[in-house]
Amino acid sequence: MIKTRNLKERPLESFDDAERKLRQIFVKLVEDLNASKPPVLRIPLRTASNTIFDKKRGIITLGGRVGERKFNDISGVRSFMQTCLLARAIYEALKNNDHPTIRDLYYYTLHTIEGTEIETFNDQDESNSIFQDIEVMTGLLREQMGIVAESRGAMVGNIILESKGNRIDCTKFGIGAFNIPSLCDQIRILDVDADYVLVVEKDAIFQRLNDYEFWRKNKCILITGKGQADRATRRMVKRLNEEWDLPVYVLTDADPFGWYIYSTYRAGSISLSYESFRLACPEAKFLGMTMTDIEKYEIPRDHLIKANEIDIKRAKELLVKDPVTKSPRYPWFYESKKWRQEINMFLEKKVKAEIEAKSSKGFRFLSDVYLPDKINSKDWIT
Amino acid sequence: MIKTRNLKERPLESFDDAERKLRQIFVKLVEDLNASKPPVLRIPLRTASNTIFDKKRGIITLGGRVGERKFNDISGVRSFMQTCLLARAIYEALKNNDHPTIRDLYYYTLHTIEGTEIETFNDQDESNSIFQDIEVMTGLLREQMGIVAESRGAMVGNIILESKGNRIDCTKFGIGAFNIPSLCDQIRILDVDADYVLVVEKDAIFQRLNDYEFWRKNKCILITGKGQADRATRRMVKRLNEEWDLPVYVLTDADPFGWYIYSTYRAGSISLSYESFRLACPEAKFLGMTMTDIEKYEIPRDHLIKANEIDIKRAKELLVKDPVTKSPRYPWFYESKKWRQEINMFLEKKVKAEIEAKSSKGFRFLSDVYLPDKINSKDWIT
Repeated sequence: MIKTRNLKERPLESFDDAERKLRQIFVKLVEDLNASKPPVLRIPLRTASNTIFDKKRGIITLGGRVGERKFNDISGVRSFMQTCLLARAIYEALKNNDHPTIRDLYYYTLHTIEGTEIETFNDQDESNSIFQDIEVMTGLLREQMGIVAESRGAMVGNIILESKGNRIDCTKFGIGAFNIPSLCDQIRILDVDADYVLVVEKDAIFQRLNDYEFWRKNKCILITGKGQADRATRRMVKRLNEEWDLPVYVLTDADPFGWYIYSTYRAGSISLSYESFRLACPEAKFLGMTMTDIEKYEIPRDHLIKANEIDIKRAKELLVKDPVTKSPRYPWFYESKKWRQEINMFLEKKVKAEIEAKSSKGFRFLSDVYLPDKINSKDWIT
Repeated sequence: MIKTRNLKERPLESFDDAERKLRQIFVKLVEDLNASKPPVLRIPLRTASNTIFDKKRGIITLGGRVGERKFNDISGVRSFMQTCLLARAIYEALKNNDHPTIRDLYYYTLHTIEGTEIETFNDQDESNSIFQDIEVMTGLLREQMGIVAESRGAMVGNIILESKGNRIDCTKFGIGAFNIPSLCDQIRILDVDADYVLVVEKDAIFQRLNDYEFWRKNKCILITGKGQADRATRRMVKRLNEEWDLPVYVLTDADPFGWYIYSTYRAGSISLSYESFRLACPEAKFLGMTMTDIEKYEIPRDHLIKANEIDIKRAKELLVKDPVTKSPRYPWFYESKKWRQEINMFLEKKVKAEIEAKSSKGFRFLSDVYLPDKINSKDWIT
């Protein structure tokens, strides 16, 4: 049923790169020591002030400022030691083809330093922060180093995958779906025969659309991150957009939480801006439900929910400028006329609506009318 | 690779039963009306005082007390109307082969009653409660009526499923997994070649065990509910135990939250006791991590986490007796010598431990030593 297109198939990412990069950094340290130079690690700063919006790429990312971590410096020696310790553990795991979590790495490296009463790490927060330093220092995200994180997403539709020699046809799951794993770059996308990717906020909506075989009738791929998206779901969406040129549409409730979920798919999160280059999908379009939909599809007044204070606070934040830099905090909202209209309409009406509100028009209204309508008429927000 | 056993294959559940049962109840109402009898709905009480522990079956369940909902009664007429309205919507969905969520049902039935300013429901809580009444009244859980809920679980290992004519071999997902859908009774279990089911609390641990092909080496089925278990994961575990006689082992962190997760698989939740007959698996065994494991496997002191007040409060609750009935609130903990020891050891030491703490002995210690060790020596708690 699926035509072979095979245009964008790319080789699987290998962990050899990560192994080599890690090795290089630490070989350099040893060379410096041998040459009696004080060893220094150079680590891009992950601070808010070093976080910028890259207009050309449409994503938030780290700026050019770099910090130094010195062994010969009393204030830096502890984090220097921690960085080396953790990097060694990651390197060992790579060598042995192990895929631990950052929590495994913490326990693996945690111990009392010989001859002292000092612990290598005080807690997991400390170890996590050092781990992120290693990510920005090497330019490798955790998944590229084979580190596993929790994942939540599911996928179904006209796509064929391959993992460990198994061919996985995502049209063959019946009412089930493919559970997207953390290291989803280790999955080959063999073939795709779809016109677009529909990302659904809510798992139950995903299941209902799958039940109706929406993906078959509309030649698409259905994905859900089951609420706020996990890293693997975001990465899979990004890959489908980047490697297979598929448009990405995001379907959420009509409320600031839904917009925030869209925002994470679209541009990444501010606190983890260094990940955007692999996880954010600036071409993702917000399909709905929109404030205009409420009128257009005549959602009854009693089907709307009164916005609460948190909703209103969140909505206002999306249009705020940073007091220091004077630039908008969420430029992809602020600089879009349609988004400003949407958010202002919400702030004026102070109501929100759930996707399920469309069921007032019948259980199949969403799948048979609303979604095809919106997509065919290109009625989305970017 | 998988031997055909096919001993326990049972026919798929049909929604016809649900349709018939719903119809019966409302045909009876019409008959009563025609015979000039006041129409009455009889609904088992979902109150705490009508919740009992069925020792023989080892699950919590509803007692025998039943409430009446009368049309000819000013205090009952609103909920009578709501029950009929919602039941009709469920019946319609069944007739049309639609599988809405309870939220869809709410929006579908929500409207202003003609000629009044009265809403059919004030909010979703009101509608959800009436929905639960329909579940206990018919003796059918929402899934048996084709109502979809969010699901979270994943499964992998020596099991072959069938859904909508597709054969789904759970050994063929590579690093991915099968995403368990809400209506998992609509999935046929074609074949199983496994000695047990291992239920893993944490998704990342599940992924790591899958990466090592633990299920292949140990001839088992791996399942995760990604934290507190959703209904579908619990139902799938129950089915594997009931239909295929597989022992079920649960692996969580060594802390009261982990015990609570086990407890939900084991006996169900108190507030939804009427569901236990389909969702609780009284034969589920708690594999670990236990307090004794901490000593046995020499988990270093600095790898333990100090219990906080909430942990201690939770642990104490597990051994409490109900002040009114004088019977233990969690009999499966209270009446088990091993469980009492475990909980008391926790209350004495006031420490907890994460599964990942075992990584201090190497990243493969959990999969290659701990799990096979515990299972082979039958070192579990029931």
